[in-house]
Amino acid sequence: MTKIINFSESRRSTDDALGDLHAIFSEELQQVELAIAEHMKSAAALIPEISDHLIGAGGKRLRPLLTLSAARLANYQGRDHITMAAAVEYMHTATLLHDDVVDDSDMRRGQPTARNLWGNSASVLVGDFLLGQAFRMMVAAGSLPALDILSSAAAVIAEGEVMQLAAMNNAQISEDSYLDIIDAKKNIGEDFAEGKVTLPVILAYHRGDAEAREFWQEAVKNPNNDAARLDRALALMDQTDALADTVERARHYGDKAKDALGLFPAGEVQKTLIRLVDFCIARAY
Amino acid sequence: MTKIINFSESRRSTDDALGDLHAIFSEELQQVELAIAEHMKSAAALIPEISDHLIGAGGKRLRPLLTLSAARLANYQGRDHITMAAAVEYMHTATLLHDDVVDDSDMRRGQPTARNLWGNSASVLVGDFLLGQAFRMMVAAGSLPALDILSSAAAVIAEGEVMQLAAMNNAQISEDSYLDIIDAKKNIGEDFAEGKVTLPVILAYHRGDAEAREFWQEAVKNPNNDAARLDRALALMDQTDALADTVERARHYGDKAKDALGLFPAGEVQKTLIRLVDFCIARAY
Repeated sequence: MTKIINFSESRRSTDDALGDLHAIFSEELQQVELAIAEHMKSAAALIPEISDHLIGAGGKRLRPLLTLSAARLANYQGRDHITMAAAVEYMHTATLLHDDVVDDSDMRRGQPTARNLWGNSASVLVGDFLLGQAFRMMVAAGSLPALDILSSAAAVIAEGEVMQLAAMNNAQISEDSYLDIIDAKKNIGEDFAEGKVTLPVILAYHRGDAEAREFWQEAVKNPNNDAARLDRALALMDQTDALADTVERARHYGDKAKDALGLFPAGEVQKTLIRLVDFCIARAY
Repeated sequence: MTKIINFSESRRSTDDALGDLHAIFSEELQQVELAIAEHMKSAAALIPEISDHLIGAGGKRLRPLLTLSAARLANYQGRDHITMAAAVEYMHTATLLHDDVVDDSDMRRGQPTARNLWGNSASVLVGDFLLGQAFRMMVAAGSLPALDILSSAAAVIAEGEVMQLAAMNNAQISEDSYLDIIDAKKNIGEDFAEGKVTLPVILAYHRGDAEAREFWQEAVKNPNNDAARLDRALALMDQTDALADTVERARHYGDKAKDALGLFPAGEVQKTLIRLVDFCIARAY
């Protein structure tokens, strides 16, 4: 019971911290929205249609907000952070379009996916267009160091997805390989039902006896895990402290993030970001 | 009969001109091959495996050769043209991987496609990796004008593919829309069998009577066109000069290419490129 209350409280606090960021950057975020809408225009009607389905539907704009935050923290005075924030959202959207094709997903956050509405071909191609457009925008901003970071990110994200595809049903992958792969979402019930290998599974497998290992091998090979199996999985994780230690790992990365923020002068943006990290760690419990 | 002899002669001549380019740039091409192999390395074993299936299998290396040619024509003295030539081949390969997914293709030039061997998901993701890696290499070369041209090309290619997807079964598209779409391959028999709309079809449709238009509408809507239908199609194209005028259009673009080459000092590379264009035009007849 306490767990549930803690969870919804920390969720609300996370939303609050995000809401504060939205308020701080409301004016710049409006300019980002204009840049997003402007670069979506195309003679191919499918492009704004599909892009708008994903980008236009709103969303948290977490990546543009972090881009704007970084610019403010570094006391950047130019105008290119607007273009970069829009480009980062385009890159993210391209990834979502391709991920839904790769995972055969029909729904995303309660909405039909683009591939569900327009098909795989359109999703692959519009994703490619958004990726190309993102690079075009970044090139227009003209910073080679920023281009270096973001083109490397694009290659590393795709590389991680390929690893995930290969490791999909292999409980024996190492913690390091797993950390190379994840993008920090750990919805254990859902992932377990799909037979996905997550850090709690890796820890429980590595620490388990022969019988437990057999269970995990079977559970990730058979992607139709039911409630009874989930109960068994949670019990095995509890015995091996797999969930608790996963949360510890999350705290470790949260602490690193906060230390990195500590380099910048204390102020509204820095404090809100630290609060966001704290709430994210709290949510992991 | 003359037609067949002309065709095989011009094919051989095209191969000869390409062979001459290979000979001129043999040393630099070897360095391009090293750069290609180097950037294919990844902890995700699927990446070199799939990339090697397409890139490693050889191929004409037409795009790297044109990149090296442009550098030589402009008397470029640095080393970055090697990286750019490899990056351009990566971009091309990423496009092939995604195209085969979009077109559900099982074979490409007598070989099973990557999606046939490794599945759609792997093809989409490895394509994304190669695209990210291509941008990374171009960023390392450090030329913002070159990045501008190539990121725009990536967006425009994807945009053209989206248009093609939308226009797939529409004989009524304009010649300009078609020219926006094509990447200059006009294999009439194959495209016709798949119901693809090509310039000869567009011209024959625009110039045809009501009966002919009905035939074309039906032929592009039904992608199972047989030999009898192909005969009818060729007869209609002949009546309307659709094929001959398509070749005239090809000559027009060939002439523009030769004029563009005329700007550069006459020399081995310039002459070989002009010869290549001439033979390509001859092949269209």
